[in-house]
Amino acid sequence: MSITTINEGQGTLEQSDLQLDENGLLRHLLTLQGMDPVQLEAILDRGEEFLTKPGAPAARSNALAGMTVANLFIENSTRTRVSFELAAKRLGADVVNLNLNTSSAVKGESIVDMIYTLQAMQVDMFVVRDHQPGTQAMIAQHVDAYVSVLNAGEANVSHPTQGLLDLLTIRRHKGRFEELTVAIVGDIAHSRVAMSTSAGLAALGVGELRLISPPELVPNNVTNAKIMTDIDEGITNADVVMALRIQKERFADKAGIPDGDEYFRAYGIDEQRMKLAAKDAIVMHPGPMNRGIEIDSSVADGPQSVIREQVSNGVAVRMAILELLAQNRRTA
Amino acid sequence: MSITTINEGQGTLEQSDLQLDENGLLRHLLTLQGMDPVQLEAILDRGEEFLTKPGAPAARSNALAGMTVANLFIENSTRTRVSFELAAKRLGADVVNLNLNTSSAVKGESIVDMIYTLQAMQVDMFVVRDHQPGTQAMIAQHVDAYVSVLNAGEANVSHPTQGLLDLLTIRRHKGRFEELTVAIVGDIAHSRVAMSTSAGLAALGVGELRLISPPELVPNNVTNAKIMTDIDEGITNADVVMALRIQKERFADKAGIPDGDEYFRAYGIDEQRMKLAAKDAIVMHPGPMNRGIEIDSSVADGPQSVIREQVSNGVAVRMAILELLAQNRRTA
Amino acid sequence: MSITTINEGQGTLEQSDLQLDENGLLRHLLTLQGMDPVQLEAILDRGEEFLTKPGAPAARSNALAGMTVANLFIENSTRTRVSFELAAKRLGADVVNLNLNTSSAVKGESIVDMIYTLQAMQVDMFVVRDHQPGTQAMIAQHVDAYVSVLNAGEANVSHPTQGLLDLLTIRRHKGRFEELTVAIVGDIAHSRVAMSTSAGLAALGVGELRLISPPELVPNNVTNAKIMTDIDEGITNADVVMALRIQKERFADKAGIPDGDEYFRAYGIDEQRMKLAAKDAIVMHPGPMNRGIEIDSSVADGPQSVIREQVSNGVAVRMAILELLAQNRRTA
Repeated sequence: MSITTINEGQGTLEQSDLQLDENGLLRHLLTLQGMDPVQLEAILDRGEEFLTKPGAPAARSNALAGMTVANLFIENSTRTRVSFELAAKRLGADVVNLNLNTSSAVKGESIVDMIYTLQAMQVDMFVVRDHQPGTQAMIAQHVDAYVSVLNAGEANVSHPTQGLLDLLTIRRHKGRFEELTVAIVGDIAHSRVAMSTSAGLAALGVGELRLISPPELVPNNVTNAKIMTDIDEGITNADVVMALRIQKERFADKAGIPDGDEYFRAYGIDEQRMKLAAKDAIVMHPGPMNRGIEIDSSVADGPQSVIREQVSNGVAVRMAILELLAQNRRTA
Repeated sequence: MSITTINEGQGTLEQSDLQLDENGLLRHLLTLQGMDPVQLEAILDRGEEFLTKPGAPAARSNALAGMTVANLFIENSTRTRVSFELAAKRLGADVVNLNLNTSSAVKGESIVDMIYTLQAMQVDMFVVRDHQPGTQAMIAQHVDAYVSVLNAGEANVSHPTQGLLDLLTIRRHKGRFEELTVAIVGDIAHSRVAMSTSAGLAALGVGELRLISPPELVPNNVTNAKIMTDIDEGITNADVVMALRIQKERFADKAGIPDGDEYFRAYGIDEQRMKLAAKDAIVMHPGPMNRGIEIDSSVADGPQSVIREQVSNGVAVRMAILELLAQNRRTA
Repeated sequence: MSITTINEGQGTLEQSDLQLDENGLLRHLLTLQGMDPVQLEAILDRGEEFLTKPGAPAARSNALAGMTVANLFIENSTRTRVSFELAAKRLGADVVNLNLNTSSAVKGESIVDMIYTLQAMQVDMFVVRDHQPGTQAMIAQHVDAYVSVLNAGEANVSHPTQGLLDLLTIRRHKGRFEELTVAIVGDIAHSRVAMSTSAGLAALGVGELRLISPPELVPNNVTNAKIMTDIDEGITNADVVMALRIQKERFADKAGIPDGDEYFRAYGIDEQRMKLAAKDAIVMHPGPMNRGIEIDSSVADGPQSVIREQVSNGVAVRMAILELLAQNRRTA
């Protein structure tokens, strides 16, 4: 599946419109594609205010007091679920978790019926993760005007809060995006993280974006990015190096894709390769990491790593976006 | 299993006594059978006060502040669990969820031991759902005087909060029950919803109650209701038409029961059939719906449908009953 | 596995050091082994203050307001999870539950990565249960200085909050430990409860501790306790009789261990045997009970049983230890 296919087929540009209300205010968070850079920066600014020093009490507010957030995880993810759960609770919301994994999978129409049911229970916001594309947009098209949908991971298509936390992490370390070279390394063709982070970086006018992968995992028809298969070339002088999690099932799926050890030799981020990057480059990873496959532990735990900051920033940008949607709802 | 068998075998009349304390106050909610109509109407009145307009903040109070509610779901049900969870949280209670599904099934005696354990942790109220009959009454007989048990679905026997929400929904649309004709359609013989809603309607003096099902699913020894197998006759001039969820396993289980398509033709509620009902008839369904089997989407989503209101009313009556039991406990 | 092996191999003495900060204040709760008796008594004193009369509202405070507790149960346990969850919520904490059971088992390194992730989300305390030894200590060695780890059950090694609740239960009924004879009966060799309760009793200077088991389940190299295999001799004149849960899989595992019925005849606590104990002896069990195997129902539910009090005391000591760790953190 190419980026073109995704864009055209799944309509992320349409999602960009769908997530705005009639006054142009953000009502849902479905995609970073096409998002106004001023809006994006405002979310990052607000997210930054929710950061506290390690060991200090977590930021809290009453922005969502009296509201109910439902975590609807059709695809399981402990870390993303907990991040959203804590973000919502720290804003004063009631949170209910619904883990609808494969064993009790619900089908097409009945997801909408479940949404109608939860909406009738006065759930105000749905945090939705699904391995099927389009579920979040479909839900957004069905909910009432005062209900918001947040995309917590959509198939290979997008993961906008991951994009937001990556942007905040980069901005805190590197400042302005215009002069930055960002290298994203891994299974670009199947990565929703690459999609959302790329879209956000493009919106904020990143200097140069390099998408580096084995030839078999190159995306199609990407604009605004350099497609590369040579990692050493790709990492050279990069200010930001982001390793993606490689799905181990890819090794079995496709002939020609190197397996674990071989992948590490060919595309793994280790100390040797990091010497090619800018001296003060930072290293990122969306987690969970396959240590020794896409990233070496010496780098993951080394001085250039900002991987744990990404997680902290994740709660912060989720608080920012939940608060924003709550405010826009009240305005509406 | 016939209604007679259930009444006599499982002792819903005894449950009616069991749920009162020595002063005649409601201590548990086990059944609507034999409930005082004045009590019933008071619960509906209070439930109505917990309704807010769509888009308005959900009703909240501190009626259960400092109390702990345990959702003990031996039979899984996401929607009923979430409805009770939100009702309890919006009243200020702490809620713990225990999903004891088949894989970790507990047996006879150890359910009581688990209840003793949770009671010793100062759980104040148990919300219990089980596919075995009698579990709720058994628990009610074992708990201490200051602990309440709420039936959240008992085998084929009863589902009293579903009955309450059905009554509230009908009352809000139709006012007085005396002049109403209510038609319940589906697998009457195995439906705890039919049992509880029928019991509530009888208590409130409904004009005429019709229980309509295929011949194989007719209940035994029902009093106070017309047993019918002809749906067209049954639906004619009805003020309320309630379709029940048909368990698909029935089709396989019993010879003679029509399968999906055939069931829809024979007993499904569609626009054509609804023309037989009173002009201003409402359509109800306890959910989750098998669209195209017991109900057509055009009816489920049409102007006569009050199905989503039922869900909203569900949270409201659960708040009312939780509050009432908390108050009666303090009085005791 | 012998106690010696455990002590030397898993380093509970090292854990005793590991759980203190540089000022000697308790930072984690990993083990009761080597704990200062004054500290132990202080925890029991504080726990006692969190007890309320049956039917009275549960004790509550704001000691953990603004803090986040993660229940990380790699080994499932509904009762211990709920006990910790209620203790934390009643102190005002936000609680997230992560049930990492066998089906989604995480391995070695990635447990640490998950901890880093949750810590980056500003989780303040980890409540950890695992069937592997050493997990809690391993986590404690990796977390930041302001994060605490509580052992909620570690392999065969220890279960310190169970030890604390046993101590509180005994103290409330029997007062000073010096003159007491305590008999623990069952699978001593594999019982983390026996380990922790023994360590606590030793620290508080119990008069005589008897560990009674079938010959096949005798622990190795125990000091400060009498190892016995004759239950009648072991129970004679005991002030406290504690039956342990026997894992039914033992019966199959090892030749020579009596099965259910036979075990009951040989080591079960019944009314007849209790006549050998002191007249005012109390009977304890950590739960969940195998009634009719290690304990007879007439004893479990009889006048000498304090089994349900143990459960209440469990929430109370967990509140005490959570509060203490929160206080020590703030001091640090």
